[in-house]
Order: sequence, then C-alpha cells, then structure tokens
Amino acid sequence: MSVQRPSEDSLIARFFAPIAGEGALGLKDDAARLSPRPGHDLVLTVDALVEHVHFLPEDAPGSIARKALGVNVSDLAAKGADPAGFLLSLALPDDWTENWLAEFAAGLGEASREFSCPLLGGDTVKARGPLTLSVTAVGQVPAGRMVLRTTAKPGDVVCVTGTIGDAALGLKLRTAPAWADGLSREEQGHLADRYLHPRPRHRLAAALRRHASAAMDVSDGLAGDLAKMMRASGVGAVVETDQVPLSGAAAKAVWASPDLVDLALTGGDDYEILCTVPEKNLDSFRKEADRVGITLSVIGRVVSGHDLPVFRINGLERRYDVGSYQHF
Amino acid sequence: MSVQRPSEDSLIARFFAPIAGEGALGLKDDAARLSPRPGHDLVLTVDALVEHVHFLPEDAPGSIARKALGVNVSDLAAKGADPAGFLLSLALPDDWTENWLAEFAAGLGEASREFSCPLLGGDTVKARGPLTLSVTAVGQVPAGRMVLRTTAKPGDVVCVTGTIGDAALGLKLRTAPAWADGLSREEQGHLADRYLHPRPRHRLAAALRRHASAAMDVSDGLAGDLAKMMRASGVGAVVETDQVPLSGAAAKAVWASPDLVDLALTGGDDYEILCTVPEKNLDSFRKEADRVGITLSVIGRVVSGHDLPVFRINGLERRYDVGSYQHF
Repeated sequence: MSVQRPSEDSLIARFFAPIAGEGALGLKDDAARLSPRPGHDLVLTVDALVEHVHFLPEDAPGSIARKALGVNVSDLAAKGADPAGFLLSLALPDDWTENWLAEFAAGLGEASREFSCPLLGGDTVKARGPLTLSVTAVGQVPAGRMVLRTTAKPGDVVCVTGTIGDAALGLKLRTAPAWADGLSREEQGHLADRYLHPRPRHRLAAALRRHASAAMDVSDGLAGDLAKMMRASGVGAVVETDQVPLSGAAAKAVWASPDLVDLALTGGDDYEILCTVPEKNLDSFRKEADRVGITLSVIGRVVSGHDLPVFRINGLERRYDVGSYQHF
Repeated sequence: MSVQRPSEDSLIARFFAPIAGEGALGLKDDAARLSPRPGHDLVLTVDALVEHVHFLPEDAPGSIARKALGVNVSDLAAKGADPAGFLLSLALPDDWTENWLAEFAAGLGEASREFSCPLLGGDTVKARGPLTLSVTAVGQVPAGRMVLRTTAKPGDVVCVTGTIGDAALGLKLRTAPAWADGLSREEQGHLADRYLHPRPRHRLAAALRRHASAAMDVSDGLAGDLAKMMRASGVGAVVETDQVPLSGAAAKAVWASPDLVDLALTGGDDYEILCTVPEKNLDSFRKEADRVGITLSVIGRVVSGHDLPVFRINGLERRYDVGSYQHF
C-alpha cells in the first residue's frame, strides 16, 4: 500500500525552514551563502551517523538530531573554531513518519540554538535502508590559528575536559547491565544520558586556540584517540590513569567491576576535548576554562619517542593497542 | 564468515589522501582548513545519492563518484560560484570490496581535478543498507554576487546550456529500449553517458554572476525546475518548446516517438544551467559562454503572473504540473 506523502519542498518548508539560519536563504535555493569574518580561516568537518551503528532505532528522534550536530560541533571546538553553521543530509527509510520528522527537526533546532550553529542547508532523500544522516559543520577561526593534532611537543601537559567513559558505560547499560546493580537510578540515568546527548565543548574554542599546542575531540575512546594524536605529532605520552576524570557514576561502576576501567578508557562517544598545553600556558588555560564552566584535568605529559602512550597505575604500565583492532 | 578488513585510517591513507587538496591537511586531522579569498562569500551545497535511487548497483564505481561530485559542482556553478573544495560522507554496505573503493577513489580524483574542486575531508562508515554518499561542496563568489533563484524579472530571456533530456532518455534506455531501435550505437552511447556522467558547467560561473538575473541547475527536469524558479521569483514564463535544445540522439528519439518529448522536458539528471538574463546582457553573456565552449539556447521569456510556465508548440500550450507529483 502506497501512502500519500508530502513533497520534499513541503517537508523542508514545514520542518526545516523554521529552524534555518539567515544564510540558508529560507532553504528555497540550491545552496547557502556564508560571508566569512574577514581575517578568518574556515574549518570544515563532516560526520555520518547510521542507525544501529551510531545510534539505536529506539532513540528519541530529537536525541539523534542532537547527536548528529553535537559530534560535529565537538570537532570544530577541538580545532579552536567557533561554529558558523551546518548542512544536513538525511536519508530516510521507507517507514519514516511525519511525527518522527517533526520531533527530529525540533531537537535539531534546539541543539542548533544551544550550540550557536545555524542550519544553512540540506538534502533529504529516501533510501531502502537504515536511517543515515550526515552533518557538515563549518566553523571560523582567526587566520592561521586552527588547532591541529600534529603539533604536540615533548614536555607539554596532556589535558582532558569533563569526564571520560560515561558514554561507553551508558551504552553498555542497555545491553549487559548486571554490573550496574549497585548504581542508583540517577547514576544510571547520568550514564545513559551521556551516550545519548553529547555535550560539545564549543565554549572552550577560544581558550584552546590561545593556549593549546594540539587538540582533538575524544570520539573513539581516550586511549585510541591519544595514541592517534601522539602518532600524528611524532611523540609519545605518559598518562597517570588515576588522574583520568571519572564521574561519580563511572567511578562507582569501576570500583564495583575494576575491568570496566578498560571500557572507560577505550570506549567511544565521550565528545570531550583532549589537548596538549605548554606548561607555561596551563594556569591561563585553566582560568579561561573555569570562566566558561568547563572542568579541565591534567592527566599526563607528552614525551619524546614513537611508542604507544603509557597508562600508569599502582606501579603497573599499560599500553592500549586500540587502533589495530578497529577494523572496518 | 568475517573477513579481515583494514582500519578506516588505512583506507583513508591509501585511497583518499592521494587525491586530497592542501586544505585537507593530509586527511590526518578531524577537520579541514580553508582560507577564503578576501572579499568573497562562500556558497555551500549538499546532495545525497543513494543506490537504486540516484544510481544503479551495476554503475562503475568511478561513474558513481563522478556523479556525486558533479551534481554538487553543478549547484555551485548555477550560483556563480567557483569550486573551492568538497567533503565526502560515504556509508559503505557490508559487501564493499577494496577494488570497488580503489576505482571509486580514482574516479573521484579524476573528477575533482577536472572540476578544480579538491577533496578537503570526509567520513567513511559502514551501514547495513544500500551504498549512500553525501557530498558537501564549497564555492566562492565575490561578496554579494551569488546568483539566486528568486530574482528573475518579467522581460528577462530564459536560457539553458547544452542539451536537455539526454540523461532521462539514457536512463530509459536501460529499462524499456524498444523506442531506441532506430538509434545508432553511438547515439545510444551518448544518451547513456549523459545519465552516468554529469557535465557540470562550472566554467560558466563567472559569466552567470556578471550577466544572469537568476539561475539554478536543471536536476529534476526542465519543466519542474523552471516552475520552481519562476515560483520562487513570483513570476511566470513562456517557453517555445521547439527552442529547447535537444541532442541529435534525443531529437531522433523524439521524432520516432513524439511522446518522449514529455520525458525530455520533465525527466531529471540534465545538470545543465537554467537562467534568466536581462535582454541587454544577452550578447555579452553569449560571448562569454562561447569563450568557455558552452552552448547557450534562448528558450523563452519571463512574464508577469503566478501561473505555471507555458510550453508552446504548434499553436498548442502545455503546462507541466510536475511539482505536485513528486511525492516523497
């Protein structure tokens, strides 16, 4: 049975035009216009999210929208870029509903306002397959000031924002929750929420470009992402595992099941900022992070060499060889 | 049986880094950098392509890549923008092969050089579904000179580049080729090629921004796209159907089966430029088009009013109400 569906133009006018920014030209053209700030470089990033891989079918449409935008704004933040806008590409499965789309657009509009990242344009197609979204985000940074991941220097301190491992534990709550019996409802809720709702650290962008020597966002797990950044910079790192910031809920989970520390350090979806900072900048960097309400933890130090980063705890050393297991 | 697959990083290094532009930073970072030309606006566009919808599984990987980039460069061209680069989001089905990806990347690199549109970044994910690609293209235009689709004026002439209908006939060749018996092998080849390989008119961008009052690319059929542009501009249009430029192959097909003229006028995938030009600019516009080797045809005129465009032939008038049938 074929259901009468509205045209793409009417979908755009009803759901997306109301949340679009000025450069979107009312989403009535083929393209968006962006007038860059004079003396600024653009930073561009794209991330695709696929149902069953990056979110689950039962996730609320607004949460999926927020995640799709949040993971891209997180990339911009790590590069020291202020969001300028985004484009959305949406491949809808055959059984999409107008209710689903209305909730998706509402969540997208809310996240867009919260992250100061307006919708500039998009494309909506139908596909006989899982829901697939792709967001391209555009940011701006004073010319030459983009923060790279290739420029960490021996002697720099390694910092991370917020807390690590919550999202991976939040996802695990859904599938194998026996270890979570000791956690309160609120603690479980906190972990689940961190998986569903990334909190991009866009308010740290200005401080990063002033003080960090290198940065990336933590999306594939702290250990693997640190290894990537160190390899890209041609250096190593030593991390004090007990300095890695855990939330109360994560600490309790790890206390009850010590093996979960590996999940916390290697699991994905943190969307915190991992950065290296010359020692002399550390105080100013901390003050600026405080001013925008973002917690910073120093977890280690950059060292010479090409070995995988070392994680030290209780006199033991551990190297996580994560990259080589991430097969495609 | 699970096959050992390379990591995403090694895929990127092998297949995509060699075709990437300077701003891609070797595809080793989370984001690309683009230093916009001073005094220029950016034009941004995104188009998604899904297997079975926008291309067929048996299409050559290089053709799919070229189409994904070409349709976006076509959008930029219609806005008067010179390509600056693109980002690719690629959702690969479970059964992808390295051979497929190598051919895809080779075709993408070739198209990227031909269209002067370097690869800036991307994301590759796996999805249990059809191959889905999304390309975001970025162009540049002198500030305030983006060509819109909302600014056609009564009295302007309506022009179109190249030839119309070839791609729709090329697609139809694959499914119901009885009408094509009278066409030579070369003629059939021409039509098939126009479906597979869009020829974006990026070399016309400078002339469009100097001379056109409004423009868009023809992707959903001439009749429907003209109706969209006229509606967006709050005007109507009269088209002389026999002035719509057909290739030799298309003309022969329409001669043999006159009903095919409707397919030529309403079928998609032309990727020509449809524009309106003030009469006084027409000579200069033609000269500049000639200089870059692009054929222009004047097919009608913009008129006052809000009716659907009229297509006139042999004293008969026809209005194609295409938009309302394009259900989603």
